[in-house]
Amino acid sequence: MRMYDLIKKKRDGNILSTEEINFFVDNYTNGNIPDYQMSALLMAIFLNKMDKKETLDLTSAMINSGDTVDLSSIKGIKVDKHSTGGVGDTTTLILGPMVAACDVPFVKMSGRGLGHTGGTLDKLESISNFRVALSKEEFINNANKINISICSQTANITPADKKFYALRDVTATVENLSLIASSIMSKKLAIKSDAIVLDVKVGSGAFMKSIDDSINLAKEMVEIGCGYGRETVAVVTNMDEPLGNAIGNALEVKEAIATLKGDGPEDLYELCLVLGSKLLVLAKRVSTEKEGRNLLIEVVNSGKAYSKLIELVKYQDGDISSIENPHLLPTAKYIIEVKSSKEGYVKALNAEEVGKCALILGAGRETLDSELDLAAGIVLNKKVDDKVFMGDVLAYIHSNDLEKVKIAEERLKELYIIGEKNPISKKLIYEEISSSGIQHL
Amino acid sequence: MRMYDLIKKKRDGNILSTEEINFFVDNYTNGNIPDYQMSALLMAIFLNKMDKKETLDLTSAMINSGDTVDLSSIKGIKVDKHSTGGVGDTTTLILGPMVAACDVPFVKMSGRGLGHTGGTLDKLESISNFRVALSKEEFINNANKINISICSQTANITPADKKFYALRDVTATVENLSLIASSIMSKKLAIKSDAIVLDVKVGSGAFMKSIDDSINLAKEMVEIGCGYGRETVAVVTNMDEPLGNAIGNALEVKEAIATLKGDGPEDLYELCLVLGSKLLVLAKRVSTEKEGRNLLIEVVNSGKAYSKLIELVKYQDGDISSIENPHLLPTAKYIIEVKSSKEGYVKALNAEEVGKCALILGAGRETLDSELDLAAGIVLNKKVDDKVFMGDVLAYIHSNDLEKVKIAEERLKELYIIGEKNPISKKLIYEEISSSGIQHL
Repeated sequence: MRMYDLIKKKRDGNILSTEEINFFVDNYTNGNIPDYQMSALLMAIFLNKMDKKETLDLTSAMINSGDTVDLSSIKGIKVDKHSTGGVGDTTTLILGPMVAACDVPFVKMSGRGLGHTGGTLDKLESISNFRVALSKEEFINNANKINISICSQTANITPADKKFYALRDVTATVENLSLIASSIMSKKLAIKSDAIVLDVKVGSGAFMKSIDDSINLAKEMVEIGCGYGRETVAVVTNMDEPLGNAIGNALEVKEAIATLKGDGPEDLYELCLVLGSKLLVLAKRVSTEKEGRNLLIEVVNSGKAYSKLIELVKYQDGDISSIENPHLLPTAKYIIEVKSSKEGYVKALNAEEVGKCALILGAGRETLDSELDLAAGIVLNKKVDDKVFMGDVLAYIHSNDLEKVKIAEERLKELYIIGEKNPISKKLIYEEISSSGIQHL
Repeated sequence: MRMYDLIKKKRDGNILSTEEINFFVDNYTNGNIPDYQMSALLMAIFLNKMDKKETLDLTSAMINSGDTVDLSSIKGIKVDKHSTGGVGDTTTLILGPMVAACDVPFVKMSGRGLGHTGGTLDKLESISNFRVALSKEEFINNANKINISICSQTANITPADKKFYALRDVTATVENLSLIASSIMSKKLAIKSDAIVLDVKVGSGAFMKSIDDSINLAKEMVEIGCGYGRETVAVVTNMDEPLGNAIGNALEVKEAIATLKGDGPEDLYELCLVLGSKLLVLAKRVSTEKEGRNLLIEVVNSGKAYSKLIELVKYQDGDISSIENPHLLPTAKYIIEVKSSKEGYVKALNAEEVGKCALILGAGRETLDSELDLAAGIVLNKKVDDKVFMGDVLAYIHSNDLEKVKIAEERLKELYIIGEKNPISKKLIYEEISSSGIQHL
């Protein structure tokens, strides 16, 4: 088999076979195929697309390029959740304990933040001594003991994807559904949970800017998951404005604690209930989502979900006193009020731009090497559709650097678009995509 | 300007500006843009195409990447001819002396053969001591003195094209009209003749297999030539079977000598008359092609054209005795008759495959480093539409190696498709493409 012939085949709009896809993934990963041939093939794939079978084959080949994590020694039906990334998305830290408190094993290998998007590992590390690097044994033992385990990818998971992504990133071949879906799903499927709920974000702060694109991505990922024999459901959710109120690592942990105590932002809690009830159904813990929702509300109201977070932190060597007393978490020197100079309704609040403001403050990473300020970030006081009077506090900036505050404050103020009330109220959940089709929510 | 943005722009089907095209040609040539980005852009160009302006800009940028050869010190209207390559195409060695004998300066920088396609320089080098490497001064002086000069590309002509071609060759991005046309035309236009006749081959032995494709390529090249301010005309001609009878370097020189003496194959002579009469019109030597044709026949019949070949060889230090006595040219030890075992008409004789037989015998180069056997090759005795009786000689194999003869003989015999008479006789010249449109011939 020659790479040249594969490029030509895809260039001419033909379907690549399983063997051909394995060939280029394996040989590119081990260095036998040069970048310049791979990028020509990627552009041909980008423009001529891959069909369902090719996308599934590509996903399998990427999974097989590295290690997989066998979770069969964890008792019960293991569930996992993945978000395509957004601003202020603290869901994992709330959803995980909620689901685990319902006696369903929640196992997740998480990532770090990049650009305007945060990462669960960074958030967890704002809890002092919290250890994200677990051995495979610890990962599995914890899940067996307390039904929850969240760690970094220590194993050599999908090395092919890493190499492909780096090349796609510099050759304008990122935004292709098959390539995006296989990249995400290969990482998910390499960790062998039994069921996955995908939270596909759409809007200004998301990778996908239109509902149609996000539905297509969701469909593609559900097809891969189900095609790979894993129960997979996707929900398309709003990322036009940040989720919840907090953006920033320690700030989001504080928000997660509050939410688990029944005192969090409504949208964030609601999303956790929606995703969680689907996970409980997939795990066969309940038979309907309604039942699941009630059970989840129950474990929050009874304090069981909060106790599960305490257990998680304890089992991963984190300082539980900072959960019990959140003021012990990293705290910024300065908290600056951003006030409105207008009266009206918040019409829009661009999530990506708010994320970039938080990035300026040190809450995110510009590049993989950037250092984080775990205390820094933004807490929104007003969100889309809220009524605002002149002088009202729109948001609070948390920072250790007054220079940065200046820049962020000015930008943040401009991001609040205030005017007439929007004719249609915002929506949190748009669609549900499962193997049985699309359901408009 | 960032290469990433140019890839994205072309990927999304947009038109690249002159500055953008200059940017990627210059920066790829000088090594600032890596191969993997260039190949992604080439695939995007391949699939999304370039328009006329982009193609002209690309050609200009490639010309400007290296040296150009100023011919203004040669008196008169200088003409050049280019063939897109075929099997047995000895035209230059006949056409050049014919045109020069009509007092029109014929100046040409030629190439070497590769694969099943021969090269003028290799053919000329079968004349002992013939020097293809001329200095710029010699090239110009000779043209001024004897109206003809044929040499290798000593100057640094279109280095960009060399680099692009090498990358296209391994990334399946060769067969795109804009890329092919700009590659050919940049090399032609860098040598500043006044008028160019393009011989675009079509058929089994040509780069272009269909008339439509070859017409499109011809149009693209004529547009570039005229857009660049050079008088350019193209003719689409038959390369379904080899041109003339001889395939192989010394064999083709012998055939050229015979043709210049009025004793060559009809198709080869006819093509020279067609191309030559167009060159004489473009050079304003005559006002109609009919007049040009008569003049060309006159210089052949009078011996002037043959004498011009002698002059060319003399001026480039070649051994004229081998022109006067062609048996002094490299001659093979063995001449083997290939005989027909069938009776009927020759229905087809695949030019590319005949070229490959000659390649096996050593007449061509498998790779750039392969050594040639200048004496080796094939002389066809029967061509398409000829009547053949059992036992008739179809072709003669010239070789110094009986092992190779065996392989070539068997293959050659199979290439002669003998059967019923073809319902439509073969055609030599299909179309003429000039700035004023397409003319069906």
